Formats: sequence, C-alpha cells, structure tokens
Amino acid sequence: MSMASTLIKENTCFEGKTQIFEHFSNITQTLMRYAVHLPCDPKEVEHGIIWLSGLTCNEENFITKSGIQRALAGTNTLVICPDTSPRGLNLPDEHSSWDFGSGAGFYVNATTEGYADHYKMYDYVVLEIYKLLKTAYQIKNVSIMGHSMGGHGALIMGLKEPEKFRSVSAFSPIVHPTQCPWGQKAFTGYLGDDVKTWSPYDATELVKAGHTHPQPILIDQGSEDEFLAEQLLTEDFKNICQTQNQALDCQYRAGYDHSYYFIASFLQNHIDFHLQHLKA
Amino acid sequence: MSMASTLIKENTCFEGKTQIFEHFSNITQTLMRYAVHLPCDPKEVEHGIIWLSGLTCNEENFITKSGIQRALAGTNTLVICPDTSPRGLNLPDEHSSWDFGSGAGFYVNATTEGYADHYKMYDYVVLEIYKLLKTAYQIKNVSIMGHSMGGHGALIMGLKEPEKFRSVSAFSPIVHPTQCPWGQKAFTGYLGDDVKTWSPYDATELVKAGHTHPQPILIDQGSEDEFLAEQLLTEDFKNICQTQNQALDCQYRAGYDHSYYFIASFLQNHIDFHLQHLKA
Repeated sequence: MSMASTLIKENTCFEGKTQIFEHFSNITQTLMRYAVHLPCDPKEVEHGIIWLSGLTCNEENFITKSGIQRALAGTNTLVICPDTSPRGLNLPDEHSSWDFGSGAGFYVNATTEGYADHYKMYDYVVLEIYKLLKTAYQIKNVSIMGHSMGGHGALIMGLKEPEKFRSVSAFSPIVHPTQCPWGQKAFTGYLGDDVKTWSPYDATELVKAGHTHPQPILIDQGSEDEFLAEQLLTEDFKNICQTQNQALDCQYRAGYDHSYYFIASFLQNHIDFHLQHLKA
Repeated sequence: MSMASTLIKENTCFEGKTQIFEHFSNITQTLMRYAVHLPCDPKEVEHGIIWLSGLTCNEENFITKSGIQRALAGTNTLVICPDTSPRGLNLPDEHSSWDFGSGAGFYVNATTEGYADHYKMYDYVVLEIYKLLKTAYQIKNVSIMGHSMGGHGALIMGLKEPEKFRSVSAFSPIVHPTQCPWGQKAFTGYLGDDVKTWSPYDATELVKAGHTHPQPILIDQGSEDEFLAEQLLTEDFKNICQTQNQALDCQYRAGYDHSYYFIASFLQNHIDFHLQHLKA
C-alpha cells in the first residue's frame, strides 16, 4: 500500500489480506521487508498495531504462527510486522551468531562502526514504519506489541514515545537488557562499551528514570519460559513499575514456555486490550 | 503416550499439550514422527481426528500454522498428525523432487522395488496410527481430514474404510489423482505402470466403483487455488458424488488459495463438523 513498497506476496485469510512488502528504507539504507494483515478494505482501516518479533525471526513468523488474522477478523485495525534487522549486508560478526547482527537488531540505533550506517531499527520503527502507517494507510491511532527482543522493543518505544503509541503490550519481553547476557552482547556490539549509552534502550532503566506510559502496560510471561531467569528478568520491571506508579498488568501463565504456542494462546487478550485503547 | 513412542518435544498451548513423538513403525520399517495436540488431560480424551498433510509437509506444519489448538480448546478430542512419508532412507529418486519420495508418500501402499519395503503410508495411517489412537489413547471414535495430498488420503481412507472413520473432510484435496500430473507421477513411482492398480487409491474412481461414506463428506476449496484446474479437479469428485448419491458439502471459497492461510480460515467449520459426528 505504501507507494514506495513492492508487494511480494499476498494471501487471503479470514476474509482479509495477509501481505508481504519490500521497500528501500532511508533509515537503514537497505531493502527491508514487512508483513501486513488487513482485515478489511484498505479504505476502511482506522487503526494499526505494530508487532515486533524476537531473535532469529523475520517479518513472517507472526503472520504464519500467531493466529493474528482470526484475532483481527471483523475489525478495522491492521497489524504491521517489520523484519528484525537489516538484511543483505556483511558487517563484522553480523552473521556469526543468532543473537547478534542479522535477525537480532534489538530495536536500537547503533553507533558502532559499520552498524551505525544501517542498524537503526529504533528509528526504522518509530519513524519510518510509523510514518508509513500514517501516510500509506491513513491510520488514526497506533499501538505497539512484541515478543522477547520485540517485547523489549515495544516497551522502550512505548515508554520513550507515549504520544505515538496508544497502548503497549509484550509477550515474554527482555525487560532489563543492560543486566542480561543477550542485552549486554547486543548493546556492546551496537552501542559500544560505555554503559551509560545503554540505559535509553532498557525498559526497566527508562521507568527508573521517570518515563511512563499513560495506559497500563500489559505483559504475559510463561512460567516455564526457559529464558525467564537468566534473560528476561520480568520481576525487575514489575518492581520498578510498582515503585514508580506505572500501571502494569503482568500475568505469569503456568506451564507456558517462550514459543509461539504461548503467544497464540493469549493473543486474543492482547488484541482486545489494544482495540479498547485504539478506539478510546 | 504410546508405550513405544518417545516424546521429542512438548509445548503448552491453549491449556492443552502439543507434542511431537517418534516411534519405530513396523509397517514402514523406519522411525516415524507424528504430532499430537491434547486439549485436555489424556485420561479425559474420548475422540480423535487424524490430520493428513500435503506435499513437502511433515508432522509439524498443521500444529504450527492452522490454529488447531484454539479450535479444539475445551473439547475432549485430540488431533494426531503423521509425517507424510518415511524418512532417513535413500531409495532411487527419493530425494530428487518435491512431489515424489520423501515428503510425498501419497498415502498408498507402494509395490515398486525399494518403495514396497517402506512406503506403506496407507497402512501406516489406517492400521498403525489408528491402533495407536485406540490403544495408547483409548479413543472411542475417529474422524479423518487432510489438505491437498492429505485431502486425497483422507478421502480414500474414509471411502475404503467407512467403519473406521466417523466423518471425512478435506481442504483442497487431489480428488482424481489418476487423472492429474501429481497423481500420475506418484502412482507410477509407487505402484508401477499398470493403471488398474491405481484406482483403489483414487477418490473419484472409488465413488464410481460404488464406495460411499455414510455421512456427508465436507470439502473446502479455494477459488484462487493455483493448483485447482490442473491438479485438484474438484468438479470430477462433485460430479461423481452426485451421480452415485454420495452426500457432499463442497464449498468454493472466493479469493482463497492453496495455503495454510486458507486452511486456518475455515478450520473451525471442519472441526465443528467432525465433533458433531464423533459425538453422534
């Protein structure tokens, strides 16, 4: 639908259209892909939800595995799913591990050599994808959600730019990346060794520094998530939200793990939450 | 749950368990994998649905992409999804194309050299998987469904063994394989050149020869399916069912293609259909 975007693939699903587009991003200076699911005629779309995926994912995981098309059926709200990093580059260490570089952009604006020229995923989402929603789709209100690394992305974007995002939710988010191995590896690689530059991309540190979102934040977290104790650190965010009076609805779900089987199980709750705030 | 099966993977989903098992099949003489989704405690399961996947698929496609866990939530009916062929062999031409050999067993009992020793997918499903449902899960009633090549499998099994399967449904089935390129290639490779040996594995030919199922058969077919005209030949089955008084509910769905986006969109209808007949 964006004038500058090329339609790569389109499937009818639950009476809507699931589409994959490619466009040249002025921010990452690469071709980027994103998926959109339009539950209704493009002219009738009113609101948009941005979905941010986790490590190793691309623009397709959410639209193939989550059941989002069913959750949005009958609404006038689309979902847009950006890829998780620039592609087609060959930067130092970009393709040597699954938790850094390609598929692992961590939704920051990189400042390190080479990465600074392309890995600007924070701006790509809050400026370029956001603008695309406003211009190509004439979206009124926008909400944001994500999973794991993408849950981290949704939280920091919602906290830093509350005027842009009506509501924020996350599945299994990395809530305190400056204090976990995934975050430390990514931030060192994208931002360098000065840890002071990391805090603006850490949801727990943002709330600690006084950032808030006007609506309650919704988090679902599987109690059997294999990454909970070492990487996700959910309690850190819960505690700082309590201290700072940031409303938070954080549900631990007994028996659930880190997978899309978990996301699918509770997706309808998150969509209902966003629809309520988008329409308000 | 089968005593002889090893649990490979388990995820909680919609308050049930999605599991992958491996077992040694006495029929294919290979290790085989299958997926199960149990929406309730194993002791409370009453009925079972067999799902047969299409070309290039394995035991995982349906449980990751279809939304079956949501459709079965709150019921006492499990789904079991066998793989689409034996694996780990190296027969002539087995791995050289996507529409023959591995991932393309076509639910026949092969008679050609080499394949006759392993590619017994018809018996694997109607004897071994069926028995596993009856013994390991103590299933009362069984229904069968599938997609494309698996829709063909569901139709021929339901028509040949109506006493075993309470109800039969298919998405985008290959209804007349003796008359389409996919079927002709597969049957030549698995059954040889004598076309008389092909008819017992062709749904349209089975109905023509007097086979019927006591319940209406349910078929959903996308009108934009890229394989409709050349490979699926849906009208041939519709016509023969009318001639032979086999009740058939065949719905063409405008705008839908051959993908899981189509399956997901109409899965709940099929599950409701099977639940009704399983409980009857």
